Amino acid sequence: MATIKLIGEAQATGTVKAVYAEIKQAFGIVPSLFRAMAHNPEYLEAAWQKFKVVMGTGQLDRKTKEIIALAVSATNNCEYCIHAHTAGLKRLGMDDGGIVELMAVVELFNGFNKFLDGLRIEPDIRVS
Amino acid sequence: MATIKLIGEAQATGTVKAVYAEIKQAFGIVPSLFRAMAHNPEYLEAAWQKFKVVMGTGQLDRKTKEIIALAVSATNNCEYCIHAHTAGLKRLGMDDGGIVELMAVVELFNGFNKFLDGLRIEPDIRVS
Amino acid sequence: MATIKLIGEAQATGTVKAVYAEIKQAFGIVPSLFRAMAHNPEYLEAAWQKFKVVMGTGQLDRKTKEIIALAVSATNNCEYCIHAHTAGLKRLGMDDGGIVELMAVVELFNGFNKFLDGLRIEPDIRVS
Amino acid sequence: MATIKLIGEAQATGTVKAVYAEIKQAFGIVPSLFRAMAHNPEYLEAAWQKFKVVMGTGQLDRKTKEIIALAVSATNNCEYCIHAHTAGLKRLGMDDGGIVELMAVVELFNGFNKFLDGLRIEPDIRVS
Amino acid sequence: MATIKLIGEAQATGTVKAVYAEIKQAFGIVPSLFRAMAHNPEYLEAAWQKFKVVMGTGQLDRKTKEIIALAVSATNNCEYCIHAHTAGLKRLGMDDGGIVELMAVVELFNGFNKFLDGLRIEPDIRVS
Amino acid sequence: MATIKLIGEAQATGTVKAVYAEIKQAFGIVPSLFRAMAHNPEYLEAAWQKFKVVMGTGQLDRKTKEIIALAVSATNNCEYCIHAHTAGLKRLGMDDGGIVELMAVVELFNGFNKFLDGLRIEPDIRVS
Repeated sequence: MATIKLIGEAQATGTVKAVYAEIKQAFGIVPSLFRAMAHNPEYLEAAWQKFKVVMGTGQLDRKTKEIIALAVSATNNCEYCIHAHTAGLKRLGMDDGGIVELMAVVELFNGFNKFLDGLRIEPDIRVS
Repeated sequence: MATIKLIGEAQATGTVKAVYAEIKQAFGIVPSLFRAMAHNPEYLEAAWQKFKVVMGTGQLDRKTKEIIALAVSATNNCEYCIHAHTAGLKRLGMDDGGIVELMAVVELFNGFNKFLDGLRIEPDIRVS
Repeated sequence: MATIKLIGEAQATGTVKAVYAEIKQAFGIVPSLFRAMAHNPEYLEAAWQKFKVVMGTGQLDRKTKEIIALAVSATNNCEYCIHAHTAGLKRLGMDDGGIVELMAVVELFNGFNKFLDGLRIEPDIRVS
Repeated sequence: MATIKLIGEAQATGTVKAVYAEIKQAFGIVPSLFRAMAHNPEYLEAAWQKFKVVMGTGQLDRKTKEIIALAVSATNNCEYCIHAHTAGLKRLGMDDGGIVELMAVVELFNGFNKFLDGLRIEPDIRVS
Repeated sequence: MATIKLIGEAQATGTVKAVYAEIKQAFGIVPSLFRAMAHNPEYLEAAWQKFKVVMGTGQLDRKTKEIIALAVSATNNCEYCIHAHTAGLKRLGMDDGGIVELMAVVELFNGFNKFLDGLRIEPDIRVS
Repeated sequence: MATIKLIGEAQATGTVKAVYAEIKQAFGIVPSLFRAMAHNPEYLEAAWQKFKVVMGTGQLDRKTKEIIALAVSATNNCEYCIHAHTAGLKRLGMDDGGIVELMAVVELFNGFNKFLDGLRIEPDIRVS
């Protein structure tokens, strides 16, 4: 159903093949996201490298990063990403109640964001 | 600078005064968000009640909820909310490196969201 | 197809049952929106209370509020909400010509919004 | 502060001058929106013609159309447009309480939109 | 599946018939976009006139304008428009690699937009 | 005014210093975007590498990519990015008339996107 062909594992050679191998080890599959990027092997490689750096541990753990990913994806209404990150959170042990709790926070602040913007209300405090 | 007058603490009576007292205890101030809502006391009361329920503890702790709030506010580009939740996270101990780490995740998935949507790529898996 | 289970009427007890009864009286059904919220009964109750306050009459009548709801939902591309509020407006007597007229206004200002933002054009007047 | 020069009334000739005359009669000023469009006289003329058709009376009156415009502009966070349509509604007699009531509806449905999208909840009914 | 009836070619009379004839000559079909607008013949006419002016050649050629249209549609996640403009670009000779290259740029800047907004970073330079 | 400190050139060491040198050669300055990313040197390096790959020539030239970047940034209302890419296009020879022509296309399709979404109109054709 995608508007472009995806590059299958059987077609992968060189850089694409090497990156696919890493991705498969991480996810068990090569998600369609990366099979679309593979039309440009250098882009696939750079995007995968950045993904690893951003999702790698720092001050925020992986679960928190999946929560951020789902909050962003819900705000943008990205079907692929909502399914992917909901599945990711369920694998990390979050149940339906937790997903709804997360979405309640998303609901609350999407609403407040627009109320505040629509009335041009100035910040109470400015961080800087 | 707001397009409407805000209801100051000195003007507050009845329901508004009671809700303001609770808000001030929670935040130290009555944020402009609530001083705008106070034009309709029932709305202020219902919004504050819902805020308490959504931000109260459940499976996700307060810090995680502030993180979600900042991720949503960044995605929506809401100036008031970005300042408010960045300040909130700094009070909870997050430093500049942590804020940038959070925003890197926001950056990554806002980008992926649009790439996937723009190519109409189907979910690899559907949660249901 | 939702990513979480919805709480059916047969499963509802306590607060959820009481809120569902009010909702059913108002809409004839318990919309899936509320059956998802019911994973957290306090959240359902607070959200329903706020809904009643916001949609209740004030200076703007119910039809105008449904029009606002549809304009917002179209701008956000929320499928569930577009169907719900289009149905609501049709029940209130709006025909296809009226829906298209509403959407023409939505089209016009979504376009102008981005033209003005993209050129950083300052307001002619500032309300305050 | 705009990123481009605006075409002032003194510089207007031909089509631009004629359209500016109509706009000034309608608004008392030539808003910056149109002074930016005037870089392409045919575009200005076509945009103004469409504006007149869309904002002209049909099933929805002018006030309702300004309400839609403000709801859309708040959802998009367009500063120019929020000021313009808030001013428009105040001229039509809406007071601060009415603006807040409108924005409460905008808040409610921006929140619900994202909650529903984020859980991939199917419409209860489909209009067609 | 649309929420309103579309005005078919057989039903078209007067202005609608005349505009449909022009549209059919341009596209080979009368796209559903215009068959929805036809509920208000004056609106259809004004929208079509503006479409011709905006898409007509100036400093930017037709292919560049289709590229802009697809970038905007991907950012907004508009299914109809993504299909229409992807088809348009393929007709103008762009292959899957080109579409992915375009979407990589869309991905990059949607990400950077939110990172910059979320940290309230000031422009390095201001154009004016 | 940013909510975090930016890492200045004088503070840069190791990876950050090396990446800053490349960036300065490309832009003449180290834009604040990258000075924020430098809180995490690996992230800065990966983001810069991906930027180079995405903006490097392929089927689309640099000017077309700046046009896409500005169209996306206008749609998202990102102040930093609108100034940056407008400046970029002016350096590449685009004048005010060209910027307005670009923004007219952005205006047109942001409007059409929402009209089509809001009426749930199915694609005329599906690319796949």
